[in-house]
Amino acid sequence: MKRGAEQIEINEVAPRDGLQIEAAQVTTDAKVDFVDALSACGFARIEVSSFTSPKAIPALADAEAVMQRIVRVPGVIYTALVPNLRGLQRALESGVDELNLVMSVSETHNRANLRMSREASQAQLLAIIEQANKVGVPCNVSLSTVFGCPFEGDIAVDEVMRLASTFVDAGARGITLCDTTGMAYPNQVASLCEEVLHALPQAGLTIHLHNTRGMALANAVAAWQSGVTRFDAAAGGLGGCPYAPGASGNVNTEELVHMFECMGVATGVSLDRLLAIVSTLPQLVQRDFTPVLLAAGPRLKLHPAPAEIAF
Amino acid sequence: MKRGAEQIEINEVAPRDGLQIEAAQVTTDAKVDFVDALSACGFARIEVSSFTSPKAIPALADAEAVMQRIVRVPGVIYTALVPNLRGLQRALESGVDELNLVMSVSETHNRANLRMSREASQAQLLAIIEQANKVGVPCNVSLSTVFGCPFEGDIAVDEVMRLASTFVDAGARGITLCDTTGMAYPNQVASLCEEVLHALPQAGLTIHLHNTRGMALANAVAAWQSGVTRFDAAAGGLGGCPYAPGASGNVNTEELVHMFECMGVATGVSLDRLLAIVSTLPQLVQRDFTPVLLAAGPRLKLHPAPAEIAF
Repeated sequence: MKRGAEQIEINEVAPRDGLQIEAAQVTTDAKVDFVDALSACGFARIEVSSFTSPKAIPALADAEAVMQRIVRVPGVIYTALVPNLRGLQRALESGVDELNLVMSVSETHNRANLRMSREASQAQLLAIIEQANKVGVPCNVSLSTVFGCPFEGDIAVDEVMRLASTFVDAGARGITLCDTTGMAYPNQVASLCEEVLHALPQAGLTIHLHNTRGMALANAVAAWQSGVTRFDAAAGGLGGCPYAPGASGNVNTEELVHMFECMGVATGVSLDRLLAIVSTLPQLVQRDFTPVLLAAGPRLKLHPAPAEIAF
Repeated sequence: MKRGAEQIEINEVAPRDGLQIEAAQVTTDAKVDFVDALSACGFARIEVSSFTSPKAIPALADAEAVMQRIVRVPGVIYTALVPNLRGLQRALESGVDELNLVMSVSETHNRANLRMSREASQAQLLAIIEQANKVGVPCNVSLSTVFGCPFEGDIAVDEVMRLASTFVDAGARGITLCDTTGMAYPNQVASLCEEVLHALPQAGLTIHLHNTRGMALANAVAAWQSGVTRFDAAAGGLGGCPYAPGASGNVNTEELVHMFECMGVATGVSLDRLLAIVSTLPQLVQRDFTPVLLAAGPRLKLHPAPAEIAF
């Protein structure tokens, strides 16, 4: 089977994209411990928090405190979501290494999620990139709903390409193609990733997958085979989609790491350390769930043969 | 991305492989209704029950009654598991269209699961095939643990090839490569499937995947790209592995159908009808679970835009 890169990078997004939708009140202490534990796993990037208005996302109102108190491990890039110029100011004061900006390729989803038109979002993101470039802090733009919008359905590839090239031209150092509500399927993922990698080789492409319809790992393999080397993922598969209650969230980091390591692709991440963290997640988010890889163990974690079998 | 066949066949195994490990007492009436509903979905095959000793699998002790009472839809092949010559007799008397025989490629797993050596299993299966061939009823041999054994770890490909060709030479009309406990990973699946298809093009290859470690759909795509056209699957992802409590079971039929149909690959299965059946499964097996595709809906089942967004 066609192979992609022998080494990939993982951006752990659970502290931001996972915790932001949890109902539980997670203390600043617990968040700091969570990020510090993740820092010891070998991730290329960790998305620590969001400098959104505390009114919009109360769960992440302590972004400054978390950024200030985590122990930064050299080599790990600590990122945060920045929605506007006020957020940029806060993120820069907190010494964030890289900024993650978000808008949707779907007009309806952008208005539903960000409460403004795509035109207004684009202008705001360009203003942030311009300011960030002046102080030398790299920006990544996450384009939501590129593989489908829960309100509009399929999205025109031309629109994805137009927005991606607009932001690359403006100096964004990375573009993330987001399957926000888990609508992507493997050959679609392969096709769009190939097109972006071909047209915008300098885009610093990341893929952000959800497991809403069970296809996250299949899509990850398709993206990898197409040349993608950077993957967003959330420990325990945290995060999710308000339009699919009961469905899965982000692609599980531990499943992604396990699969690629089985395939001989280096992720840089210690699965043992990560699984130890995953085992603490139900307590962290104060609800019961069973991450499947944690339940099953890595594939070569063998079991003793039943004592009663005769040889 | 590399495409496989434009049309695939699905063998729905939930009535046998799913129900056999459920703790709930499922009535014969409920089983008959379940199989009859599945018959209207468009499956190539349905594995209806198992002609095992009622002591070994009490849940399927009513195999004769179920076979007798289901309404057979022309074009659907009704199969059943047959473990020995006594089971063969019962299956033939019940007019099963095709027999599914099982043994493990791992000595330890075979002894743990079937309580005999591989040598004894092989001899027994060959005797069944010989008898079945005499009366013209086709046999499929499912080889367990070909992608890894929970006791022994990785399995020698040579052993898989040896057993597969032994049974093909003896007149088996199909070979199923079973990832019994979800240890398979995509490039391993591709490699073994390619080898079997190359060496035994007449083998009538089926792949049987489990989602124990989240990779079922990724493995299905890898198998499809390698030329596999027949897939076992269980509605709702029923079934599972006694060594991974809490983990997922068989590959979800509805997720498999949904993915391949999204990819433009015809499965012959009506997803709408199948999802209607899936919605009844928690009641059938008397435990609460949320099949993820049922929760999320097919990817293009769109949602109304939030009323409050301004346009």
